[in-house]
Amino acid sequence: KVIWTLLVTILGYASSLPVGDDSICTAEALAKYSIIFTGKWSQTAFPKQYPLYRPPAQWSSLLGVTHSSDYSMWKKNEYASNGVRDFAEKGEAWVLMKEIEEAGEKIQSVHGIFSAPAISSGTGQTSTELEVHPRHPLVSFVVRIVPSPDWFVGIDSLNLCEGDHWVEEVSVDLFPYDAGTDSGFTFSSPNFATIPQDTVTEITCSSPSHPANSFYYPKLKILPPIAQVTMVKLRKSQLGLPVPYLNVQAKSNEIIDTAS
Amino acid sequence: KVIWTLLVTILGYASSLPVGDDSICTAEALAKYSIIFTGKWSQTAFPKQYPLYRPPAQWSSLLGVTHSSDYSMWKKNEYASNGVRDFAEKGEAWVLMKEIEEAGEKIQSVHGIFSAPAISSGTGQTSTELEVHPRHPLVSFVVRIVPSPDWFVGIDSLNLCEGDHWVEEVSVDLFPYDAGTDSGFTFSSPNFATIPQDTVTEITCSSPSHPANSFYYPKLKILPPIAQVTMVKLRKSQLGLPVPYLNVQAKSNEIIDTAS
Repeated sequence: KVIWTLLVTILGYASSLPVGDDSICTAEALAKYSIIFTGKWSQTAFPKQYPLYRPPAQWSSLLGVTHSSDYSMWKKNEYASNGVRDFAEKGEAWVLMKEIEEAGEKIQSVHGIFSAPAISSGTGQTSTELEVHPRHPLVSFVVRIVPSPDWFVGIDSLNLCEGDHWVEEVSVDLFPYDAGTDSGFTFSSPNFATIPQDTVTEITCSSPSHPANSFYYPKLKILPPIAQVTMVKLRKSQLGLPVPYLNVQAKSNEIIDTAS
Repeated sequence: KVIWTLLVTILGYASSLPVGDDSICTAEALAKYSIIFTGKWSQTAFPKQYPLYRPPAQWSSLLGVTHSSDYSMWKKNEYASNGVRDFAEKGEAWVLMKEIEEAGEKIQSVHGIFSAPAISSGTGQTSTELEVHPRHPLVSFVVRIVPSPDWFVGIDSLNLCEGDHWVEEVSVDLFPYDAGTDSGFTFSSPNFATIPQDTVTEITCSSPSHPANSFYYPKLKILPPIAQVTMVKLRKSQLGLPVPYLNVQAKSNEIIDTAS
């Protein structure tokens, strides 16, 4: 099985990646990707206040969207929507799904929603499939850090189109963000609404600069990535499962059926 | 917006529905459905031991598969697979996803996997999209009851094909099942493996016949449904979101693009 792969590993601030001008995407009409999310939240990498009980460290469902630059799911230094607040605080997806739907209806800025199952520990994987379109080549998603006040990881408007073609494979290291809606400092802080609401900010080993912060590691320069996401372009009709992929022969038969 | 809808409401034992012979499905090649899961696990309907804290009553991610009769995700009175055990006990989807993938590879019995985000309370909704194929017209899924020892709700091999056409809409009431892998009696029982493993059994208001059982309501004849699922056939290229659906005009443009 020969897959020509361009591995683009982007370290660091996913949300500060340049958002490509999606109007210049001239790639073929649709592309499907497998998206694999890997939790790297281990007690070894993040020993401080690592949650062991009720609940232990884990990840919520992943909720994502493929869209144009007219839509934004979340953005660093901007205010989180009500949907992102509900998701970051409680893992509740419904309001966010309705916001996405509305953006799709009103300004046709959304191609599709995707989600992947939760992960019941801090380290582990989940995966699903997504589809992009030349007018909707951007990918955004959020995964709630559980337990936490309103912390999440995610991607904001990653462009999978490079001019006339779709990126073959891309991996991004993920770092924690604070949705700005709950003032808790630690993983298990009780709910305490931030009023007025703050903007979405990245949590680093030195910010918030307070020893009580669960991610405060004054001896580190940067936090290790708490998660990673990889998107791999699928061949036509390939099922978007983790490797090893499903038998391609089986799926080819279905293309013939569809065309008949 | 005129949608001709055949509403088929099947009350009762979803898993004991006759599994249609999928070899006789002569419907058009592919059909897409919106699937909406509604949690009905309220303190009013299920007052006994209703979980309020750490964690309160809620639902895991939904994990589902469209398949042929050569595959079975779970079946009443049979032993749960390791994947279903992990999912029912911990909400961990990875092993189950790999089992599904393997069934797709080895015996080409799987068309696709789908998942929907978790619901952070006992009542609420989540939704996603699924695709069926004449050779893979059956739908199965599981949603873990949280907290619980190894309890879940789901559908086993519901056939969406009726001879030469796809069902327009179907709703099924869901009742709790015990995966047979953990011996806890109550929502918050500590883990205690069932050795040897028991089969998957339905939990009713009288079975297990023990007053400690969280669903034991000796005055009831049957439990109220703890959840419900509705599948609605989508028109071509319609986005599988909860009603109101996305603007159809926007999606029609994309069909034209794809054909060009």
